[in-house]
Formats: sequence, C-alpha cells, structure tokens
Amino acid sequence: MIGVEEARKILKNLDLKCTKTQKIPLEDGLGFTLAKEIFCSFNLPPFEQSIMDGFAVNESPKTPLTFEIIDEIQAGSTRSLKLKEGQAAHIYTGAPVPDGTKAIVMQEHATIVNKKLIIQKSPKPRQHIRAIGSDLKKGQLLFHAGSEMNASSIGVLKSIGVTNIEVYTKPIVNIVVTGDELVTEERPLKKGEIYESNAIVLKSVLEKNNIEVNKIVFVKDNFESTLDVLSQSLKTANLTLVSGGISVGAYDYVYESLKQLKVKTFFYKVRQKPGKPLFFGGRDKRYIFALPGNPGSALTCLYIYTLPFLKRMQKNSVFELPSIQLELLDDVHNKSGRALFLKGKRKNLQVRILEHQSSSKLMGFALADVLVFIPEYVIDLAVGSSVKCYMIH
Amino acid sequence: MIGVEEARKILKNLDLKCTKTQKIPLEDGLGFTLAKEIFCSFNLPPFEQSIMDGFAVNESPKTPLTFEIIDEIQAGSTRSLKLKEGQAAHIYTGAPVPDGTKAIVMQEHATIVNKKLIIQKSPKPRQHIRAIGSDLKKGQLLFHAGSEMNASSIGVLKSIGVTNIEVYTKPIVNIVVTGDELVTEERPLKKGEIYESNAIVLKSVLEKNNIEVNKIVFVKDNFESTLDVLSQSLKTANLTLVSGGISVGAYDYVYESLKQLKVKTFFYKVRQKPGKPLFFGGRDKRYIFALPGNPGSALTCLYIYTLPFLKRMQKNSVFELPSIQLELLDDVHNKSGRALFLKGKRKNLQVRILEHQSSSKLMGFALADVLVFIPEYVIDLAVGSSVKCYMIH
Repeated sequence: MIGVEEARKILKNLDLKCTKTQKIPLEDGLGFTLAKEIFCSFNLPPFEQSIMDGFAVNESPKTPLTFEIIDEIQAGSTRSLKLKEGQAAHIYTGAPVPDGTKAIVMQEHATIVNKKLIIQKSPKPRQHIRAIGSDLKKGQLLFHAGSEMNASSIGVLKSIGVTNIEVYTKPIVNIVVTGDELVTEERPLKKGEIYESNAIVLKSVLEKNNIEVNKIVFVKDNFESTLDVLSQSLKTANLTLVSGGISVGAYDYVYESLKQLKVKTFFYKVRQKPGKPLFFGGRDKRYIFALPGNPGSALTCLYIYTLPFLKRMQKNSVFELPSIQLELLDDVHNKSGRALFLKGKRKNLQVRILEHQSSSKLMGFALADVLVFIPEYVIDLAVGSSVKCYMIH
Repeated sequence: MIGVEEARKILKNLDLKCTKTQKIPLEDGLGFTLAKEIFCSFNLPPFEQSIMDGFAVNESPKTPLTFEIIDEIQAGSTRSLKLKEGQAAHIYTGAPVPDGTKAIVMQEHATIVNKKLIIQKSPKPRQHIRAIGSDLKKGQLLFHAGSEMNASSIGVLKSIGVTNIEVYTKPIVNIVVTGDELVTEERPLKKGEIYESNAIVLKSVLEKNNIEVNKIVFVKDNFESTLDVLSQSLKTANLTLVSGGISVGAYDYVYESLKQLKVKTFFYKVRQKPGKPLFFGGRDKRYIFALPGNPGSALTCLYIYTLPFLKRMQKNSVFELPSIQLELLDDVHNKSGRALFLKGKRKNLQVRILEHQSSSKLMGFALADVLVFIPEYVIDLAVGSSVKCYMIH
C-alpha cells in the first residue's frame, strides 16, 4: 500500500517510451496534442488593413485639409491602388489600405463638400491601420509540441492557412467490467442483482475529456473468461480500464489473471478513501488500471489517476487535473488514516462538502464540481480551512 | 448602446415561450437538460449487500464464538439462504446477505478451525452490511426538471434501470459567416484577403458545450444573398449566429436584412471591449446573434451571451457561465469607458492578464482559461485587486 503522492509520482515518472504521431485535418484537432511545434508561416494580417469604416488619406497641402476622393475600397478588394498627395479613398473595415496612405480617418470625423473630403485636423500618422504582422508575425513560435488543441488554437492555425497538423495518436482505451451481480440487459432484477452503471459513467467522462472508448466488454466472474478478456485487451488497447474484481475475495480473478499475463505491478492499493484497492500495472507499452467496482471509487480513481495518465500518454505538457485552493464551508474529520477525496460543490472561493460520500454512491458526483483532497495525515479541519480542490467534469 | 448588465438582463428575462421536449435513450443524455423531475423507482441496493469479503454470521451461543459454515455466497448469487443460530456463510463483496444474518465479519478477523468459523469478539450488529435503500431510496427525488445531465447523473439513473429520459430538445443552431475578404478554400491568399477562421472556432466551442451546429453558410457581401440566407436561417434554426457584417459600413448588409425580415432588435451595441457592435434580435421563437467579425470579439460575445442563452433555451436551471473572484497579477487600466473582457490565465487564486488582447487576435483565447470582467465604471485596478472571472472552454 502506498500514499496518494507516491502513486501520482509513479504515474508521472513512468517512462512511456515513444508515442506514435499522425497527421490529421486541423478541423478534427480538438483535444489532440501537438507532436511538433508550429511556427507562423506568414504575417497576419498579410497586408495593411483598415480597422474602421472611413477614409484612407494621403498628405494634403491645404488647410482645412481637403482631399479628392478617387475610389472606394471594400473588404476583400484585391485591386491595386495608390493615393497621391491630396487624394483619399472611401474604405471599409477589413479592407486593404492603399499605397500612399498616411492614416485612416473615421467616417464620423469627415465631411464631404462638393465631392471633396474635408477634415478638421491632421490625423495621427498610421491611425486605424492594422499593421502587417500585428496579429501574428512570420516566424513566430505559435504552439509548442505538447500543447493541447482547443477551439481558439484551431482558429489561430486556420487563420494562417494550416490545413493539417501533426499530433500524438490518442491511446486506444478498452473498458472491462467484471461482476456477476451486474445486469446489463433491460429486465427486472432478481434478488442479488444490481444494474451495471460503471461502463457508461467511465465512457462519458472519457469522452468529455476527448478520449473515445474503443470497446466495452462485460466479463463473468470466472478465471478463464477474465484471463481471456484481459489477454485480448492487452494486445489491442494501450490502456485497459477494469471495473471491479481487484479486491481480496476468492471470486475476484483479475489480479490472478494479471499475474499470469506477466503484467508488472506498478502499484496496488493506495492509502485513500474511496479507491483503496486501485491497481496500476503494465506490460510492454500497454497499461492497466484496475479500478474498484464501487461507482464512486471507480470514478475518483479515473479523475485523479487515469485522466492525467491519458494526457501523459499523449505527451500533453499539462497533464494534471486543474486544482484550486478553496475554503471549507464544513468541518472535515478524517479518522481513516487515509487521504480523502470528498465530493464538493464550489461557491466562488468556498467549497461545500456534499452528502453522499459513500463509495457506492454516484449521486455526490452528479452534484459535485470539485474533489476536495484531504491528505492522509490530516485528522480534523475546521470550517474556513484552505483545502486543495481538483476541478472535475 | 446599452451596458453589459442590461444586455445580460434582457437575455435572462426574455420570455422564450414553450420549449419542445423529446424522449431519448439515457446513454445519449450527456449535456441534455431534463424536462421532468425524476424520482427513484426502487431502493438501491434493493437487497442487503455485503461490503466486505468475509462471513455472514447468526448469533452464536458459544464462547469463543463458533459457527458452522453452511454455504458460500458470491456476488450475483440469486439463491435464497437462511442462517440459523450458530451458522455462518462465506460471503463476498457485493453479495446478498442471507436471512438471519446478524453481521458480516471481515475475513481478516476470522479463523477457521476444523471447518468451523471462530471469531474472538461479538461483531457490531449489522456491521459491513449495506442496508436496503442506503444509496438511493424509493420515492426520493433524484433530479429536478432543468438539471443538466452529466456522466454521473447518467450513472445514477442507469443504476435504477432507467433506459429513456425526457429532455428539452436542443436548439437548432446555424452559423452564417459574412465578409468578402474571407477565403474558405485551400489556396494562397491575394492581397486584401485573409483566411476565414471564425466558423470552426464558434462551432468547436459550441460542440464543447454540447451544441451541434446544424449548418454553416458563407455569404457574400451583397444585400440579396445576405437577405436570402438570413431569411432561410430564420425559418430553419432556433438560433442563428452571424459572424461579421453588423458595423456601420455601407458594405455591411446584415442589419438592413434583419430590418427587412422584421426581426425585432432586443439590443444593438453593448458598452464593452471587445464586442461593441453586438446585435441580438428575434422573430417569433427564432433568435439571432450578429457577432462582430473580429475573431476575439466574436468569441467573447459567444461565451458571455450566446452560451448562457443556449442553456436558457433548453430551460437549464443553471445557465450562467461559472465565475470566480481572483486576484489580479497585473495592473489594469481602462480608459475606454466600456466594460472590458480580458483574456486571463488562472494561477490558483490569482489571474495573469495575457498579451494579445486585441479584438482581432485569437491567440489570447488559445492560452486563456478565464475572461476577466472589468466593469465600465472602473478605470484603474492595481495588482492584488479582486476581479470577477468567467471560466471558459
């Protein structure tokens, strides 16, 4: 049995060897991690652009400043135009600024008399002109390798004409659900049975975190089936999540199967509540989390250990769950000698500890937005204490 | 021109009339809003369940306590069994507790001598037994109408055998992109052109927030096309997002088209930076946001106004963006007379104001995780000031 920090350290420092990369269309990039840094291929905007509706003007020798209006330039115009001294052109937001322009004068500050533009004072040089490269500069580093693509980074790359990106291939993830008491069909329960619910919860949280699930397999509590399913999964998936079947009971065959399959144990059992009987192991470059079967325990382990590890598998440079220090709105007592992960609800800078903390209950998770971390050595915390909270969903 | 709070109030108080509902499979429910409250249909667990591997025991008259082991009960067992005085049964985690059981004794606290179970002290009554209904009680209100389904609430409903849920139908959303300078094909740019990037950004953020985009239409800057596209979209979509084309320029035809289509203006122009020329209107039960064309402005308006409104359209009882008060790590000066939404990066309880605040730049959004709100009447804020931050992505 190890502590939470130790378990995390193992996951953080494990040598994952090389990771595959692939080229994908930029538009499919959401949630992928860049395998290569990306430099800006040209200046944005690539031409001087008006940021106002108004007039592009060249120097005028006359006072009050008077200009001959020689043209009209709308956004998207690709015509060449040059203003000579004393000339102006009507110009619209986003349009290319003609050569010879000293500044843009806002429509509201201009008067037109006898088809001539008259302005009262000399404009500031270059005013209302978006300079070439003022948004993005050619050669500038845009994104490091290891950056996760979000909507806006896709937009940034789209704006410089990128169509494909090189990303780390996402891990293939299987879910294996054990437990003879679990019913997956739509039928009434017999005494002794309960409806299976872990698979959809794990799958939904993974999808919300940009990981598709390759396969969900339900396996009966016997050694041959368990061995067979795990053996298959170790061949096809980069990560197998087993739900249940890792406690000490004689009817739990997962651990025995893993031993026979020569899966190396990186850790088994963590001093935490819920989620104590968590197993993490691997063989070659294939990894396995065996999560406790209780819904609340399984989900806690998924958030705290599996999601960060999945990001590491994609070489994401930011892989830990986002966290924040909040003030307790409730006392916490911890007589377990283990670390606690409590379902909590943030209220601005404070956190309310929810009911439904039992490891079998999912209701707490349905209402929670943070997991409050109480280290194992902490026994009593009063209202107002500052606690580390992991943000979930 | 109105202030930010006034714009928000309009969106918050608008009478949206009746909203359609539909039945969907529970497993597709992520991100949907419940149209009906859900009560628990039976007790969970529906039978007394062992939470340990060990022995179910009935009273024993002998000291030290000695029991005859009459059976073995695994999880999923549907057999009936009754323990008489002095009897015990081997039992595993999750298995149904036999009738007549006083308590469960952990495996670690039991000794077996001559096939008899011997324990040293009398167990606490009912220990290690999960009582019927201790997770969820029959008749208990599980979720209010207006609750958004997350992974865990799906799990909760799955665990009581729910297969379909009644939800509010998601709004049909179209995106209309205007701007003759925008290039959507893969080809080199001519002077005066830039690559279109708003569509994919708006689409990605909407998808991240569980809203599929029905249609993306690119429209040329002329009145007939604009009128035609907007007229079509008002017939098919519940919400149309227009990107660009709402400023005062002669080449901006959106506002004219909306007028001709008798779209009622709920507001036009908000005292904010970026995003001033935001338009919000509607006709019958169809709504339109005309977002400014600058990528940073468009996205700011999407987060602050459109996403909450989309949740309201689904009668989600929590529709505002989550926010938090953070401490500034940088001075803020606001000479604009407008409210600011600044791209920021949270560092625990502090926030760093990012570079790239210009309305044309998306880079700030690619790096940000909050939008820092500076009200219009605030001119100077020193490092350490507390500011309201909206959490984005």
